[in-house]
Order: sequence, then C-alpha cells, then structure tokens
Amino acid sequence: MSPFINDRAYLIAHIKTYISLSDNELAEIVNFFDTCSYNKKATLLSAEKRCDKLFFVGKGCLHLYFIDGLGNQKTIQFAIENWWLTDFLAFQSQKQSNFYIEAVERSDVLSISFSKYQELLSKFPKMETYFRTIYEIAYGAALMRLKYINSFSKEDMFFRFRDDFPEFVKRVPQYLLASFLGLTPEYLSEIKRK
Amino acid sequence: MSPFINDRAYLIAHIKTYISLSDNELAEIVNFFDTCSYNKKATLLSAEKRCDKLFFVGKGCLHLYFIDGLGNQKTIQFAIENWWLTDFLAFQSQKQSNFYIEAVERSDVLSISFSKYQELLSKFPKMETYFRTIYEIAYGAALMRLKYINSFSKEDMFFRFRDDFPEFVKRVPQYLLASFLGLTPEYLSEIKRK
Repeated sequence: MSPFINDRAYLIAHIKTYISLSDNELAEIVNFFDTCSYNKKATLLSAEKRCDKLFFVGKGCLHLYFIDGLGNQKTIQFAIENWWLTDFLAFQSQKQSNFYIEAVERSDVLSISFSKYQELLSKFPKMETYFRTIYEIAYGAALMRLKYINSFSKEDMFFRFRDDFPEFVKRVPQYLLASFLGLTPEYLSEIKRK
Repeated sequence: MSPFINDRAYLIAHIKTYISLSDNELAEIVNFFDTCSYNKKATLLSAEKRCDKLFFVGKGCLHLYFIDGLGNQKTIQFAIENWWLTDFLAFQSQKQSNFYIEAVERSDVLSISFSKYQELLSKFPKMETYFRTIYEIAYGAALMRLKYINSFSKEDMFFRFRDDFPEFVKRVPQYLLASFLGLTPEYLSEIKRK
C-alpha cells in the first residue's frame, strides 16, 4: 500500500459527468478522500469488522464477497473504474460488515469514512445529487440483475455476461467470475470450451 | 381508481423521519404528487411502455414483476407501506419499462412524473438527501438479498423470510410469495405443510 499522485483526477472526472461544480469546489471535495494503491488480493474490508469506509475505484477492480457455511468465497459484486463499493447497509448504520472487499487486481482506490462522508454531504449539497443519482442507478441495476437471475440458466447468464462485458470477462480471474455467476470453476471451463 | 383524502400524510410522516423541513415546505412537497387508490390487481406500470412514474406506497402493497419466456409472471420486488417502487433504470433514462407493477391488495399510492421529480429535487435540495438515503438503503438491501440467494436453498429462503417477515407472509397471496422465492406454488404449499 503506498500513496500515489493525481489519483483524485478519476473521481473529479466522474463527478463532473453528473453535476457542475467549480474547479475549486471539486478540488476541495476530493480532498475529503484518502487515496491508496492496493496490490492484488489486498483486503480493504473484513466481515464482522465495523464498516467505516466507502470506496471509489479510480483504476483496477474490487470485489465484494462473503464466505458461506462450507468455507467457499462467494462474489456478490464487482466494482471496476468509476464504481462505488461498500456494504451500504452496514456503512449507513455504522455496523459490522456482512462482506469482505478485496482487490481483484492492482487497484487505485479512494476512500472516505462515514463522518467525512456526512461532512462532505453537508458542506456540498450538490454531492447529495451526485450520490442520489449513483445509488438510483445502482439499485435499478440490482433489480435488473435479479430479473436476469430469474430469467436465465447459469449457463445462459455466462453467455449474456460475455456478450455484454467481453473485456471484463477476459480481465477477471475465472474462479471469481464462476463464483459471481454461481457456477463451479470446472463447469465454467466446460461451458467456455463448448 | 378514485382520488382520496389525507393520503399524503403517509409521505409527510416518512420524509420527517429522514430530514427536517417546515410544515409549509412539507405541504408544498407532497403537492408535487398525484394520489390514487388502486384496487387489487390494478396495473400501475406496464412493460415496454415508457416508465414515467415513481410510486410511493402509503397503504397496501405493490409488486414489480416480469413475464418470462414461458409466460410465467415472476415477482422481483414487493413494496409495502413507506416503500418506493418503479423500474429505476428506465425511470431515470425515461426509457421503456422492463417490468410491470401491479397492486397486490387495495393500495393508496402517491406518484410523481419524471419532470415533476426533477422540479421537486431542484426546488427542495433537502429531498436529494431524502432520496439519497432511501436508495442507499435499497441498494444495500439488494446486495444482502443477493447474499441470501447465494447462501440458502429456496426452501431455507422461505423459512428465513417467514421468520423475518411473519406478517408479510400471512398477507400476500401464496402464488406471489412462491414466485418471489423462485418456487412453484405447489412446492411452497408442501414446504409449509412440513
């Protein structure tokens, strides 16, 4: 983990696509965030620890997972560039996390604590609009994902995923993709061979 | 469908639990909404029609569903008192809905069009905070639901659901509950008999 330069530019660019703010305001906003560069497999959040961080991926990829009763790691959500990730229920209520967050590859990440997040929103009300829009999209996408889960077999889910996100399928380790789709890695290899 | 009186009080009470506004402001805010009383099985939103309404359930219960390739109705989300419901992706982009919304029982519902929603948010920035919080919780809950789907068998999902929401399980028609849990109505009856 080491600090890095100019990483806040990712967030500035993303905020600008949703709301208009002056360069001074944007500079002040991104200063609310800590920046970290994580190596592949680094742990950013652990289950059963208080969830006090909201993460923004500038570069790289994170995943949110839990460990099931049999000790298997199950990926629930990926976050690539310009995605926000945390256990949102636990973050909002400042309770223990239900999930782990880990870097899938080397990742440049911005993070904000709950108290800083509150301070940011109260000082820059336009950021309420930004986050309202982000979460509206994220929740809408989650409903669509539940529709897909109910529409397609796991095998068809893979083909759909590959067609919709070809670069992503090449990028992430196949055992994580298998976990996300609810397949065994062996079965995913078999589907891909077909 | 007929208009009814004093229904906006449900929304006023809900907004007050999240943000503080004067009585005058609250009165003005709820006037942005239309109010309707829907009979059981009334359709509020149809798939493949432009999604121009965001709904708030004052009293009653709605469900969001789609029709699969075999013509089966599949429930993705229920909304009871104090829940917001629409196809959020389609609403935000003003595109065709991917879902239907129907009243599960007689329901008193407030609705707002996309243009009125924009007007409301711009006139009352505190409503950005309200909706940001609502969606933050909704998205967090969706991630938890994906965790449950990946943790439990459909049978165990029912028992968990019954333990967490006993009143709700008694309230909704069993074929809808079965659809929501991904079970056939016959299999759900069998589980309940055990």
